[in-house]
Formats: sequence, C-alpha cells, structure tokens
Amino acid sequence: METIDWVNKHIPAIAGKLERAVRGGLSAGEEEGLDLSGRTVIYDILNDILGVLFPGFYSKDRVPKSEMNFYLGDLLRHISLRFVRVLTEILTYHCKKRKDCKECACETRAQKILASLVGSLPSIRATLVEDIKAAYDGDPAATCLEEILLSYPCIEAIATHRVAHLLYKLDVPFVPRIMSEHAHSKTGIDIHPGASIAPRFFIDHGTGVVIGETTEIGRNVRLYQGVTLGALSPFDKQGNPRRGEKRHPTIRDEVIIYANATILGGKTVIGKGAIIGGNTWITRSVPSGAVVYKGQEDGKKKQ
Amino acid sequence: METIDWVNKHIPAIAGKLERAVRGGLSAGEEEGLDLSGRTVIYDILNDILGVLFPGFYSKDRVPKSEMNFYLGDLLRHISLRFVRVLTEILTYHCKKRKDCKECACETRAQKILASLVGSLPSIRATLVEDIKAAYDGDPAATCLEEILLSYPCIEAIATHRVAHLLYKLDVPFVPRIMSEHAHSKTGIDIHPGASIAPRFFIDHGTGVVIGETTEIGRNVRLYQGVTLGALSPFDKQGNPRRGEKRHPTIRDEVIIYANATILGGKTVIGKGAIIGGNTWITRSVPSGAVVYKGQEDGKKKQ
Amino acid sequence: METIDWVNKHIPAIAGKLERAVRGGLSAGEEEGLDLSGRTVIYDILNDILGVLFPGFYSKDRVPKSEMNFYLGDLLRHISLRFVRVLTEILTYHCKKRKDCKECACETRAQKILASLVGSLPSIRATLVEDIKAAYDGDPAATCLEEILLSYPCIEAIATHRVAHLLYKLDVPFVPRIMSEHAHSKTGIDIHPGASIAPRFFIDHGTGVVIGETTEIGRNVRLYQGVTLGALSPFDKQGNPRRGEKRHPTIRDEVIIYANATILGGKTVIGKGAIIGGNTWITRSVPSGAVVYKGQEDGKKKQ
Repeated sequence: METIDWVNKHIPAIAGKLERAVRGGLSAGEEEGLDLSGRTVIYDILNDILGVLFPGFYSKDRVPKSEMNFYLGDLLRHISLRFVRVLTEILTYHCKKRKDCKECACETRAQKILASLVGSLPSIRATLVEDIKAAYDGDPAATCLEEILLSYPCIEAIATHRVAHLLYKLDVPFVPRIMSEHAHSKTGIDIHPGASIAPRFFIDHGTGVVIGETTEIGRNVRLYQGVTLGALSPFDKQGNPRRGEKRHPTIRDEVIIYANATILGGKTVIGKGAIIGGNTWITRSVPSGAVVYKGQEDGKKKQ
Repeated sequence: METIDWVNKHIPAIAGKLERAVRGGLSAGEEEGLDLSGRTVIYDILNDILGVLFPGFYSKDRVPKSEMNFYLGDLLRHISLRFVRVLTEILTYHCKKRKDCKECACETRAQKILASLVGSLPSIRATLVEDIKAAYDGDPAATCLEEILLSYPCIEAIATHRVAHLLYKLDVPFVPRIMSEHAHSKTGIDIHPGASIAPRFFIDHGTGVVIGETTEIGRNVRLYQGVTLGALSPFDKQGNPRRGEKRHPTIRDEVIIYANATILGGKTVIGKGAIIGGNTWITRSVPSGAVVYKGQEDGKKKQ
Repeated sequence: METIDWVNKHIPAIAGKLERAVRGGLSAGEEEGLDLSGRTVIYDILNDILGVLFPGFYSKDRVPKSEMNFYLGDLLRHISLRFVRVLTEILTYHCKKRKDCKECACETRAQKILASLVGSLPSIRATLVEDIKAAYDGDPAATCLEEILLSYPCIEAIATHRVAHLLYKLDVPFVPRIMSEHAHSKTGIDIHPGASIAPRFFIDHGTGVVIGETTEIGRNVRLYQGVTLGALSPFDKQGNPRRGEKRHPTIRDEVIIYANATILGGKTVIGKGAIIGGNTWITRSVPSGAVVYKGQEDGKKKQ
C-alpha cells in the first residue's frame, strides 16, 4: 500500500480522536478549550527585548551607530504591538477561566503592563551593566566586558530574570515563567521569576543552578554551577503544598557559594560575606563571615 | 592577497582531503559511506508531533477551535509522509550495513511503524495529561495546568520520551535516541528511550537528571534536578561492556527522590513510598516507606 | 487609548534614553561604542564547520555522494569569506581598544587564522573519529558509530572544542569563547577553549560537566555527567584573581571519572589509570592506578 493511501484512510479517524481530546481541555470538566498562541511569540518578544538592551550583541543584526536611534525605536514599536496583543489574549483567557472578564479591561491592563515594562528597560540595562562588571571582577578567565556579554550564559539568564521578575510583580500570568524557562533551556540556569536579586549578581558556568520562587539575594553575590537555593520540603506535615509561604533561603551581601552546594529552607539565612564550599549541604542558617567546607574524599583510597 | 584568491587557490585541495576522509566513512573498513539526511528532519517531525499532542501550546501557530480538525489532519498527514520517507532511508541504510536488505520490506516496515506511532498518539496524550496533573499536585509554585504545559521543561522531556520509547520498543534504529537527545539539549533532562516509566511522572527543574536504558519507574514518582538513575559500572570484571543486561535501578510507585541524589545498579530497588534525600549516594536497595537523608555539613564551620 | 497612540507618544523618549546608554558603552569612560555583529554569525559559521566535518550528520541538507566534493568546496568557500569578514571586524575592534590598530594588518591576520583553521579541518576530523570510537568502546548502550555521531551530545561539544582550542592558541579574541558557550548551551557541557585534551576523549550524558581553562587531559579519558575539573580558589590570598596561572587539574591517560565528582586545583594530578568514583571531592593528587570512591548513605536510614 502506498503511504498516501494509508494516510488518507486512517488519519481522519485519528485526527478526530485527538480533536475530541483537545476540545476536552486539560482538566476533565473544563469547557473553554484553548485559545492561546504558542510559546514562540513570547520567545520572539523576549529575544527582541534582549536585542534592545544590548544591540549588536544580543540582536540578530549589525547596528551601525548612525542608525541606532531608528533601530531602537523601530524594535520597541514592534515589541510593543505584539506584546499588547498576546498579553491581552492571555489576560482574557485567564479572566474567563475565573469568570470575571471584561475584555476591554484586559486590553487596558495589558497596555499598563507594557508601559511599565518598556519604561523600565533603561534602568534594567543599567543594573545588567553592573552585573557584567561583577562577572569581570569575579572570573580570572574573563578578558573584557564585551567577552562576558557575548559569551557568558549567566548574563542572558539574569537579563531574562530581571525582565520576568518585573512582570511577575505585576501579576502577569504565564509570561514570566515562559520567559524564565526559555533562559533555563538555553543556559541550564533555572531562576524562578519570583526570586528577588540585587545588582552585581554573578553565576559562573551556571548549568544546574536552581533558584526558588521566594529566594532573596543581596548585592555582590557569586554562585557557581549546580548550586541549589531550594525548599526543605515543598509540603507541610499534612501533605499539602506550601503555596504562598517563604520556602527558599535568604542570601546576604558579598556571599560566595561554590559549585554544587545545596542550601534549603525559607528560614535559612546565609550571613554577609560567608563562603559556602562546594558540594556542601546546608539546611540551617550560617553566620556572617563564616566559611563552611568539606574535606577530601580519601579515607577509602585503595591501590 | 584578497581572501577570495586564497580561497580559490587553497580550498579545492582541502575539500579533496575532507572528501576522501568522508568517503572512508567512520570506521576504516566501511565502503558504504553515508546516505542519511541530517538530524534536523527528525527534530522537525518531533516538534510537529508535539504540536499535534498539544495544539496551541507546542504548535508554532495559533489554532482556532473551528479549524482544529483541519489543523490536526493536515499536520498528521505532513508528519506521516516525511516520517515514512526518512524512516525507510534509515532502515535501508541499517539493513545494508547488515547485508540483509530488501528495500521494499524496509518501506513496508516503516509504514507499520508509522501506523503504531500515529495510532498511539491519543493514548500518549491521555498519559501526558496525567503527568501534567501530577506536576500540578507536586509543585507549590504551579498556578494552573496550562502554565505547566507552557513552561515546565519536564513535560517536553516526558512527551518526547513517551514517543521515543514506543519507537525503541519497535526496534527502530537511530530515531529514538536522536529524539531523546533533542529533548536533553532543550531541557537538560537525559532519559534513555529504553527506560520504562508509568503515568503521573514528574521531574521538577530537571537539569542534570539522567535516567538509564534499563531503568523501571512506577506510578506517581517525583524527581528533582540532578538525580542520576544509573549503572554501578558499565563494565563487567573482564572489562567488557555490559550490553543487554539490566544495569539501572527499579523505582516503585510513590517514591520521591530529592535533588542530586545518585541511585545506581540493576539490582537496586527503591521500595514503594520511600523518600530519598538530596545529595545521597545509593548503591543498594531501600525498603518500602524508608527515608534516607544526609545531615548538615557543619562539622567544619569556622569563623 | 489605542496601543499605537501610546507607542507613538512614548517610545521616542525611551529609545532616546536607551540610545544614550548604549552609546556610553559598557564601561563608563569608553568612547568607542560597539561595532560588532551579533553572535549569530559566529554560530552560523560554527554550524557550517560542523557540517563540513560530518556532512549528512551535522549538515542541514542531505549530501549525495556524487555531489560531496562540490558540497564541501562550496561550504568551505562560504565559511571562509564570512569568517575573514567577521574576524577582521573583531580584530579591528579589539586593536582599537588597545590603540594599536592598523586595519590592513587585521585583515592579513584574519586570513592567516583562516588558513590555519581550514587547513586543520582534515586532522580535526581524524581526531574526532577517534573520539567517536572511544565513545563506542565506553558506552554499553551504544549500538554503532553512526548513532553516536547522530545523537551523543559529547561529540558536538568536543568537535566545537577542538575548533575553538585551535583559535584560542592563535590568540583570537571573543570567537573561541562564543563557540564554546554555544556548545555549552546545546549540550550542558562547558569546556573552556583553553583546555588541552588528547584524542579518544569521551563524556557520557554530559550535562553539568565543567572543564576549566588550564586543565590538561590525556588519552583515553572518560568522564560522566556533572564532573567539575575546576580551580580551588580563583583568587589569591590578597583577593586578586589568579589570571594566567595554572588553576585547574591535570588528568593523565586512561583515567575514568564518574558522575558529579569534583576535582580542583592546578597542582592536582590524577595519575594514569586512576578511577575516581561518583560524588567524590578531590583537592589533592591521586596516584596512578588508585581507586577513590564513597560508600552508601545509609547511616541515617529510618523506617
């Protein structure tokens, strides 16, 4: 049998089955179905925001200085129109699920969120320049600021976080997490949009870093690959998820946390200037200036 | 000298050298050479399969409800024709290497594999909806099912795995592993297509997770980032690779395994409902309901 | 208000602010501004180099054998012209910052670097074929060499490293690190272009592997996911970064390092044939043939 014949004979029934499943929605009782565009629109908008923050570095095109103003204005316009359109859809979808939607209000809210976002880009850029300088100060392998911007994954992760965190604080549904997971996919660095992070933040290498929703991080903090700032247990004693609680640690200014250290718990505070050694396991607070490390694995060496 | 002159003068000799190397194939004695298309065809097919499973989420385009049936039928046709073409090539290439190829049989086999794959998509979707619900139940930071589908990397990794595992069981060469490594690249979650995984499986964060070929995982299992379910040693005492043996652990229903735990060995069984703490190192079985954890690294704290 | 009206009213001022910030450059006193193309040109060139090294595998298109010579010559020409153009710009930018630029010299230097790079591709391919064979010998789950090339992330990471390391040794600014971070993003394997790595190198799974700038690795070395070959401390006792020193370990021939082991320090030497167990923490040298491992976490098991 030709493949095309098999296709013509069998695909309609399979498509019908899938259609019924899709119309049923994700949860059994849901009647609304889906009316979202794919995630790719949001990825595109995020990439354009990065291109506006660092033209010539994160933009796809070269940007001659003489055309910089035109380039920035043009790209900001393009970002704005798409952002309001997709955000209005998302807000409407979200409101409808909560049965309290007035469509015009969603568009107005989307415009206000756009104004906050776009108006904050100059100060977000200024903070990111501080982060880049902290990376230069923190890594002996760095040769100049441009190299860091062009090739250090943490800059893309932190830039995305500073945008996503702003949207998170404005209670925007879906978008902050889609953005942070896009950066996670590209860098291996997983920062929940809820985490609050002061300037001059540097993550070296970065793969496997996880920073939870209610984490607070002070100025001049430096992390290495594989560091987890997580929850002790995401569930209370009755087995219910601890939604809304502070579940993740507080890291004060000037702290250094070496590779693969794990720091857990909402009451855990790492004091100012403390140094946490690699592969350590921390579930209680550590005082300012303390140094916590582990020794060589050599009790079990054999020839 | 102009670059173009250097190019015209030197490139032909270098191209000739490379051509001889490429015609020589990967192994010295091989005469067949290569006749595969690139990996990108398979990535495209995989992305379209994800688009069929969750239109509007994993699809590139918006899909209005009124066009859903047309969209699904159209995309399934497009998947089917490309899949049979590329799979016939791969099967033929694979058979020729084993000197037992009858080309017509390869196309027929490709069609049968297509029928299994496409016919299973509705039930794969149903299982994935269970996985999404388990993610919602397991993560206090999750706000709704749609957010999980739009932004949790584990869903893309598990969706890819459920497709790749079906092809693995049908002895399809190359394709399952290409699919699973594509998901690995995007999510940091490395699940060998051979692993057998029951419904309601959830991986939080996920970067660095490795699940080996002969792993078996029960219902309602939850993993965190950096968990390894691996082999104790991939080689036997004579130094030969242990191909075909059960080398990876068995995880029973309701088990939770926290971040960066390492569980090794084909005879290692983690009993029902056990909780394995973060950063632990497990090479022997753990009984049902047991809790294994490690204490704070604080013996070596200094001011 | 229509979004377009808001955009027309407010975007010009925000674009102006961003333009002033961008013209200011990354560091406060800098007057030059930026004149680099984006990173995407270099990603494209790298992908084309991989396509030349393994046509039909890493190329986007099918390459019939009869067209192989044409394909290789054509793609090498395309690589060459773009590479000299972008490299001339980067060298010029770099020289101008150091106030010692003669533009013609930059183009000549770019051409010499191109000649080294392109002329080395046949021998880089030969080394990579050795790496692929080592992967086959080292992984019981591997079924044939083609599968490794099509789906093992370490091959893309090592291929990129062997190209980037050649450029690093020629003192090319920016490009080597951009290439290695591209591979890092796709594979989770972070190899600094400065690391020196002998043939028959294999990394299984790979996510989270970090190999520092001054690492030296012998023949037939095998690593697993999450292994760090890093610096003990990137700073000396006065708090200055240790730029230029040997800060990372030396790994001799035939060493195996299991998952998530951490080996630190420029004076740390792992002797020939040693086996380093998973999750170990090594800060001093280990003699040839030694086996270092850790025991089961079971002192704290409770029912």
